[in-house]
Amino acid sequence: MRPWLISIVLALVPLDAGGPTPAADGPRFDGDKLVQPAGYDMWPVVGASLGLSYSQRVEGSDPGTFHRVYVNPTAYATFRGTGKFPNGTIFVLELHEAAAKTSIAQGGYFEGRRVGLEASVKDSRQKDGWAYYGFENGALESAKAFPDARCHSCHEAHGEVDSVFVQFYPNLRK
Amino acid sequence: MRPWLISIVLALVPLDAGGPTPAADGPRFDGDKLVQPAGYDMWPVVGASLGLSYSQRVEGSDPGTFHRVYVNPTAYATFRGTGKFPNGTIFVLELHEAAAKTSIAQGGYFEGRRVGLEASVKDSRQKDGWAYYGFENGALESAKAFPDARCHSCHEAHGEVDSVFVQFYPNLRK
Repeated sequence: MRPWLISIVLALVPLDAGGPTPAADGPRFDGDKLVQPAGYDMWPVVGASLGLSYSQRVEGSDPGTFHRVYVNPTAYATFRGTGKFPNGTIFVLELHEAAAKTSIAQGGYFEGRRVGLEASVKDSRQKDGWAYYGFENGALESAKAFPDARCHSCHEAHGEVDSVFVQFYPNLRK
Repeated sequence: MRPWLISIVLALVPLDAGGPTPAADGPRFDGDKLVQPAGYDMWPVVGASLGLSYSQRVEGSDPGTFHRVYVNPTAYATFRGTGKFPNGTIFVLELHEAAAKTSIAQGGYFEGRRVGLEASVKDSRQKDGWAYYGFENGALESAKAFPDARCHSCHEAHGEVDSVFVQFYPNLRK
């Protein structure tokens, strides 16, 4: 095997490679970058929301964006069985514009153009236990974790279970 | 095998039992009733919407309900590959109340209590090619198809592809 090929193979090892057999649908890293998860559109969606914000919205303002949150099937099954997220849990957040008045839709909103693609990973190597990534709406094949603690401090303070906003996700609440 | 057991087994045959091997995730019938699909929460979600309506909404009225649409993985893969829905395609529609101002959410809406569970099946035995079912928000283990053509006439007139509202579903549009 050529040296460059070996280093690619070594760089793409999944999280927890030294521990129990990692989930095939778990996060993959290229060095310290999270590789954009392939095929996540087949993963379970735990919840959708429109325009969720942490500050009071101005009446009559635009509806905001749709959020749709996927999780890898292994972590979903584990959480449904145990109430705990395993190391290597990966959530994918898609943002879509709120589209309206297309076709027969005279009122309400549906998911229009995608405008964001982000992820969070439960990772025991991280100081906070979780890391957060942005793929610039898919333009980045891999991304480094956001360097500051802003994502996590809010998730930790308000996420109902293990820094995850389970309270907003019907398929994890039930 | 006792006679009543045989009749249960025979009644639960999947669609197209006499044709090519049916998809394991396809619809199952108990006589002429569609059995509520088990494990559909693991299926791909093709789109989410809030308050979509076919008539003009009154400004300031409530936001309506969230719709979330799942499809069986076999049909999803077939459609992504060919642009066609196979016989035995099953869509599941969940409706959730639009919940607001919980936890840190000061604006916007997320999926609250589930208030509806419906399904549509592409079924070559049906005159219209599709049939539509309601499970009374999960209370019914199985359901007969809605007897009138109201569902289908709208789907047929406005559904972009094969009576399906593909135009509202980002994961089928792309």
